[in-house]
Amino acid sequence: MCELLGMSANVPTDICFSFTGFLHRGGGTGPHRDGWGIAFYEEGGYREFRDPHPSVHSRIARLICEYPIKSNIVISHIRQANVGGVKLANTHPFVREMWGQPWCYAHNGQLSGWETLDLASYRPVGSTDSEHAFCHLLGELRRRYPDPPEDRRGLWSSLHELCEKLRGLGVFNLLLADGEYLYTYCSTKLAHITRRAPFGEANLSDAEMVVNFVEHTTPDDVVSVLATEPLTDNEEWVRMQPGELLVWREGEIVARYLSDE
Amino acid sequence: MCELLGMSANVPTDICFSFTGFLHRGGGTGPHRDGWGIAFYEEGGYREFRDPHPSVHSRIARLICEYPIKSNIVISHIRQANVGGVKLANTHPFVREMWGQPWCYAHNGQLSGWETLDLASYRPVGSTDSEHAFCHLLGELRRRYPDPPEDRRGLWSSLHELCEKLRGLGVFNLLLADGEYLYTYCSTKLAHITRRAPFGEANLSDAEMVVNFVEHTTPDDVVSVLATEPLTDNEEWVRMQPGELLVWREGEIVARYLSDE
Repeated sequence: MCELLGMSANVPTDICFSFTGFLHRGGGTGPHRDGWGIAFYEEGGYREFRDPHPSVHSRIARLICEYPIKSNIVISHIRQANVGGVKLANTHPFVREMWGQPWCYAHNGQLSGWETLDLASYRPVGSTDSEHAFCHLLGELRRRYPDPPEDRRGLWSSLHELCEKLRGLGVFNLLLADGEYLYTYCSTKLAHITRRAPFGEANLSDAEMVVNFVEHTTPDDVVSVLATEPLTDNEEWVRMQPGELLVWREGEIVARYLSDE
Repeated sequence: MCELLGMSANVPTDICFSFTGFLHRGGGTGPHRDGWGIAFYEEGGYREFRDPHPSVHSRIARLICEYPIKSNIVISHIRQANVGGVKLANTHPFVREMWGQPWCYAHNGQLSGWETLDLASYRPVGSTDSEHAFCHLLGELRRRYPDPPEDRRGLWSSLHELCEKLRGLGVFNLLLADGEYLYTYCSTKLAHITRRAPFGEANLSDAEMVVNFVEHTTPDDVVSVLATEPLTDNEEWVRMQPGELLVWREGEIVARYLSDE
């Protein structure tokens, strides 16, 4: 299984602290040695860094830890390969442009029968179930909404429906973003925490590191972090429910969809 | 005006030497301070690094110089903004997936009347003439070839025709790649050199650096480099003609199209 890390914030925020703990799971405290990637939506654009080597030994990962990139939305992934060989084309996150926005996607889990999922506007570059499911999901949204919908709720509801369908094929924990919204869907495992004033201290579970957020924030900052497993051991993380889709904007939950089951 | 750097090679080759000279033009010996980017097609995938800051001061650019990424095709660009503000979304190269391949594009020049170029499958994320022209060009190829064509020559001939049309709107020097082929089109300025055995020494024009390629190559290596202006001062670079499209594969020119004019 892979691990996911996501962030939504109301001010450009660096993810160095969380990423430092997270990347230790990539071949350090965790078994996820088969590559990693991180995508940043920054003021004025999108960029990503991907590497097919274990994050704990990656020079590029080290740069990301030391070089604070300020961002409102981050999606990161460390990989333990199941479907698809260890290579760059199979390394998350994946990105496609829809409606002039870069849509970024990372998946934790494994699907069966994914080869038969319809593809329309988008085709996979690599050979993973994850990227195939992404191309299916985005192609289906684009088929329903050829232009960016004014009715955001309809789009989100479609997204939830498609996620539920994919969950029917196996395990489908998801981080997805369009630059404004971060979408998080839980199939089995995804936890979140929202930090806001009064800020306190946090201890990383996977590395010896403590941060006092008071020193790095202003009283109006709202920063939410999501991860497959909580990254700190002295804070209360909220575990999402199976079938739950959360829509985040500027660090806050703006919509929530639950399974009908 | 911006500057372009490209490479096509028959073995995975690092571009550290050429990139070191090239990035000095990004705010060092040249006026191109408005961002830079580099894309690598590696065995097993595609990745890119982009930064809206001058390349000569960029920590990420320094990493690229020091951390050899072995690649068969490279496209790089340093920017001097004309259309579109200095921001990440306006930083080349641009990429879109077509037929399950990442198509990467960088442009040097300026177009007029570009706003009226038709868009179909692809829409720009940023606000440059360059990205708009890319979305037009790729969308038009995809309209003509919804599936990857078996007849490569027909595709290349279409590409040449579209480049000629874009040259009619201004200056359109182009680097484009699909992972197997590198396409280079000259509107005003683009030069190339092919290095093969017997290898010799090369002196960078923009930085004090000499490389003896004999020490870094095997006798079968073929490595071609393209740049807006020659990067070395002791080798014979070939300048492309206006209206000329070259198709490169594994370091060799496999097709050439000239203007009808």
